[in-house]
Amino acid sequence: MKNLALLLLASGENSPDMRYAAGFSTPDDFILFQTENVNYAVMSELEYDRAKSSAGKNCRVLAESDFGGPDRMKVFQNIKERFGIDGFLVPGNFPLLWADKLRQSGIPVTVKEGAFFPQREFKTPDEAAMIEASEHGAIKGFLRGREVLGEASVADDGKLIWQKRVLTSEILRAEIDAAMLRAGMLPTGTICAGSLQSAQPHNAGTGPLFAHTPIVLDIFPRSQTTGYWGDMTRTLVKGKAPEIVRKAHFAVCEAKKRGISLLNVGAIPAEIHLAANAVLEKHGFFTGCNDAGNFGFFHSLGHGVGLDIHEMPRLSSRNAKKLAGGEVVTVEPGVYYPEWGGVRQEDLLYLGTDGTVTNYTAVDDDLCVE
Amino acid sequence: MKNLALLLLASGENSPDMRYAAGFSTPDDFILFQTENVNYAVMSELEYDRAKSSAGKNCRVLAESDFGGPDRMKVFQNIKERFGIDGFLVPGNFPLLWADKLRQSGIPVTVKEGAFFPQREFKTPDEAAMIEASEHGAIKGFLRGREVLGEASVADDGKLIWQKRVLTSEILRAEIDAAMLRAGMLPTGTICAGSLQSAQPHNAGTGPLFAHTPIVLDIFPRSQTTGYWGDMTRTLVKGKAPEIVRKAHFAVCEAKKRGISLLNVGAIPAEIHLAANAVLEKHGFFTGCNDAGNFGFFHSLGHGVGLDIHEMPRLSSRNAKKLAGGEVVTVEPGVYYPEWGGVRQEDLLYLGTDGTVTNYTAVDDDLCVE
Repeated sequence: MKNLALLLLASGENSPDMRYAAGFSTPDDFILFQTENVNYAVMSELEYDRAKSSAGKNCRVLAESDFGGPDRMKVFQNIKERFGIDGFLVPGNFPLLWADKLRQSGIPVTVKEGAFFPQREFKTPDEAAMIEASEHGAIKGFLRGREVLGEASVADDGKLIWQKRVLTSEILRAEIDAAMLRAGMLPTGTICAGSLQSAQPHNAGTGPLFAHTPIVLDIFPRSQTTGYWGDMTRTLVKGKAPEIVRKAHFAVCEAKKRGISLLNVGAIPAEIHLAANAVLEKHGFFTGCNDAGNFGFFHSLGHGVGLDIHEMPRLSSRNAKKLAGGEVVTVEPGVYYPEWGGVRQEDLLYLGTDGTVTNYTAVDDDLCVE
Repeated sequence: MKNLALLLLASGENSPDMRYAAGFSTPDDFILFQTENVNYAVMSELEYDRAKSSAGKNCRVLAESDFGGPDRMKVFQNIKERFGIDGFLVPGNFPLLWADKLRQSGIPVTVKEGAFFPQREFKTPDEAAMIEASEHGAIKGFLRGREVLGEASVADDGKLIWQKRVLTSEILRAEIDAAMLRAGMLPTGTICAGSLQSAQPHNAGTGPLFAHTPIVLDIFPRSQTTGYWGDMTRTLVKGKAPEIVRKAHFAVCEAKKRGISLLNVGAIPAEIHLAANAVLEKHGFFTGCNDAGNFGFFHSLGHGVGLDIHEMPRLSSRNAKKLAGGEVVTVEPGVYYPEWGGVRQEDLLYLGTDGTVTNYTAVDDDLCVE
């Protein structure tokens, strides 16, 4: 049987797989390979000490200079010979330049189908704790955002005024993001979408914010130290919520509760998604498509969170693979209508291998801010 | 002659080349090809409208559905046939999975050597203006950092105290980064390295900051809207600077002035680097290596800045390619000694095609903060 080793050539910054396997992050690309279930990181002199001190349990650090470096092809050849490797399995995004060079020198390179490290789907207790810590950072951002909305006043034309200026999505985002930075988190595209912009799930929000209309705050920072993400969403209304918004918010909260209640070992994601959707329909919020585009609940109920913000498992109507325990997932039903806007509520949850569910999003679901 | 088109398959977020060619950014990968000097972006329905409205002058937006999408291989085949393309030139980091699929279906794929878009080295007036705006964002961060150091008091053990807590690199970084966020910039690894940490050019800094010892602030944010970077460095001392630090700071400022004065159309980067180094040596700051590692001025004088934080041209002792005008470069001499720390000063400059030099870093070089 051939001895095929897994191979990554990437930076920890850009590759969650690399960060997962190495246990540390670098700005520059380096070589990591896995053979007989041990990861080996090949580091330059510059990074060697830091890698040694921060490498994960299952990662051994080798000095590039011991393998003929910095000539990368020499390093590959030496790895192949010393570890008795016949070829490499690489991820689909492996750089073509180096695949071509390896093949030209007679070393087979094959793209590995599916997840490169399937075990990333199931978190160790250490990983779960790091994700929970990131979620705490997200909550700090949210609480700052809600505080600013509380401090804001309402002008005659309905615009929110804060610190003597019109409060915009941009200003609110900066306040939320600054609070997260202070908590050691890296903000990434925080959504503060008001009024009709809230009807587009991916609209980050621009311009003035108004009273008596929904403002969706979707907050997903990455920890600057661990690289793990948090993710949460709350919809807020400054002032008084229109009846349709109150009804939608109630339905979405009920759908979220239902989805969370169904998380269990052996549960089927597609069934959880459909059950949450059924709650929305029971409250009169239907999904469909017309000339103006999609309306209703037209994204999946949730997704895994880890070193990627979106990873396995998907809580979608198309995922029939049973939950096994160890997953960290969002549950985030939402409804969107171009006539009045959207409402989404999102919690982040850990499903233990014993079926217990821990909700990391320790924040109430209140809609209105006085 | 064969008709070889340039091909990118990347997201705007992760690929400066893609952002450059398309003029917009996306979170997800898409196809862009260039034939007869026109760029064509192939967009899904979801992104089509946004791409249309924000694409650059030289970029035409095609609908994926008109090319057989979302099946990516069909899209490639259709592009090949309709544009009479014989094969694709791709960057070295092109994803192997798709290169293999293209080749298996008989479409040649070749890695293009060198810079994928060499013209990125030379900025249009629009690009230069966006970089200048990003530098203004960096300056806002720096001024906030200096303000915090000004507000800090000094404890008996020399530690800085701010808002009743010990001021750490982490707290100072969060204050600088928050100010940049408010200016629409994305902070990325801001360096606040104090005491002996300042002797390592890439040390971001951790733990308490102290009076009477150098604190290097190296600030390089990316604009959230344009994607262009700013980059600047100042070294500050809270209180009184030791004599060696004052001397080093003076020498580094003189070297910076000398480097800037030599920027010109036709100037050779290696000569500029060496001239700056000569100024440092004249003031007694020599470069070398001993058991503890490198000391003195052991990085290059500067680098290009654009959609990448480090890009062409390098102002290094090994770059003999004459400046042509249109470059935006840093000039950032620094000296580092493990015994007492380091000093670096960095400005960002635009070299016009007529040889005029514009300094974007409108901040003084003062060393001490009262």
